[in-house]
Amino acid sequence: MGTVTPARGPKEPQQERSRATRRALLEAAVSCLAERGWSGSTVSVVAERAGVSRGAAQHHFRTREDLFTAAVEHVAEKRQGALKAVAHDLPPAGSAARTRIVVEEIVNLYTGPLFRAALHLWVAASDEAPLRDRVTALEARVGREAHRTAVALLGADESVPGVRETVQGLLDMSRGLGLATLLTDDKPRRDRVVTQWARILDTVLNGEG
Amino acid sequence: MGTVTPARGPKEPQQERSRATRRALLEAAVSCLAERGWSGSTVSVVAERAGVSRGAAQHHFRTREDLFTAAVEHVAEKRQGALKAVAHDLPPAGSAARTRIVVEEIVNLYTGPLFRAALHLWVAASDEAPLRDRVTALEARVGREAHRTAVALLGADESVPGVRETVQGLLDMSRGLGLATLLTDDKPRRDRVVTQWARILDTVLNGEG
Repeated sequence: MGTVTPARGPKEPQQERSRATRRALLEAAVSCLAERGWSGSTVSVVAERAGVSRGAAQHHFRTREDLFTAAVEHVAEKRQGALKAVAHDLPPAGSAARTRIVVEEIVNLYTGPLFRAALHLWVAASDEAPLRDRVTALEARVGREAHRTAVALLGADESVPGVRETVQGLLDMSRGLGLATLLTDDKPRRDRVVTQWARILDTVLNGEG
Repeated sequence: MGTVTPARGPKEPQQERSRATRRALLEAAVSCLAERGWSGSTVSVVAERAGVSRGAAQHHFRTREDLFTAAVEHVAEKRQGALKAVAHDLPPAGSAARTRIVVEEIVNLYTGPLFRAALHLWVAASDEAPLRDRVTALEARVGREAHRTAVALLGADESVPGVRETVQGLLDMSRGLGLATLLTDDKPRRDRVVTQWARILDTVLNGEG
């Protein structure tokens, strides 16, 4: 191959490989956390799952805390990016149909493997001082970003008193629905709650018609 | 003392002692779970905290799973009993003032040490087969009971379409608010969300006036 492809500096492919390794580690870390919890998630387990040597993993992430907080942040950014991409195909702002789709998409953010992984990280962090500050800061960043995205997608006007708290309550409800799916997949119940709360939000945010 | 108190059968005080020991174990188990998580919560640690021998603890609870699921259930019942007792001092049914107090009391159910303990148990159960079925069943019982209490306190009429799901969403929101307090005590934010959603629920459940 090297004989036909145009000559390149040796650095570029190496950087690409390095980025690919990093990404593989981050995604393996999140699935590991979701499936095995914090106590079952070590750097070695993740390295093996990503098909990377332990040394290479430690080159990218100095500590276990570095690896797992970076992993949850990386996947959260990806998921929020996907949520923002939804904006292009939405019904007009201010319509009930739009509110329904947005509420559903936000709830979906909190009911997948990412939320499961984040939940394990939060619970572990609540007992472990070195992890606690980092996860608290991470959670604040991710939460602010989720709030901004929700406001934008709903077309909500936060200068109206109460609108900010209305959207926050929606995000809290989504987190609670995520928690409920931890033990049982209660999708039919969840769908009914989503339908009803989307109706309520539509009335609060867009008025009675 | 025995010389002045009236004679009793030997069984009665023994049963009382046994009940007191059981209760001490259950409450020690919940505080242990809230502070140290599942991995730090063993029967020995709880027995020591309750001032009971390990043998006595095992006489009451054969396994670690028995002890901790019974503990979460016991404390959940106590908390729900306390919530029901609130009913006696509430403003009239259908009033905004009543809805505000009820929403606040329900949210309080999910932001104390019991919720923290239950959260540790849920997350542990999501990874551990022997615990999973028991915690799932426990969570279903506790959830149904919380729903019934919320409906009764709010004076909600579940024969009206959407009311059931409105109340479920409120309980999910409360769980989500509880989750948010795991890492940071965000009471000022929580109070604002409670105020706004109590207003919204009052309109949905009691109409515009």
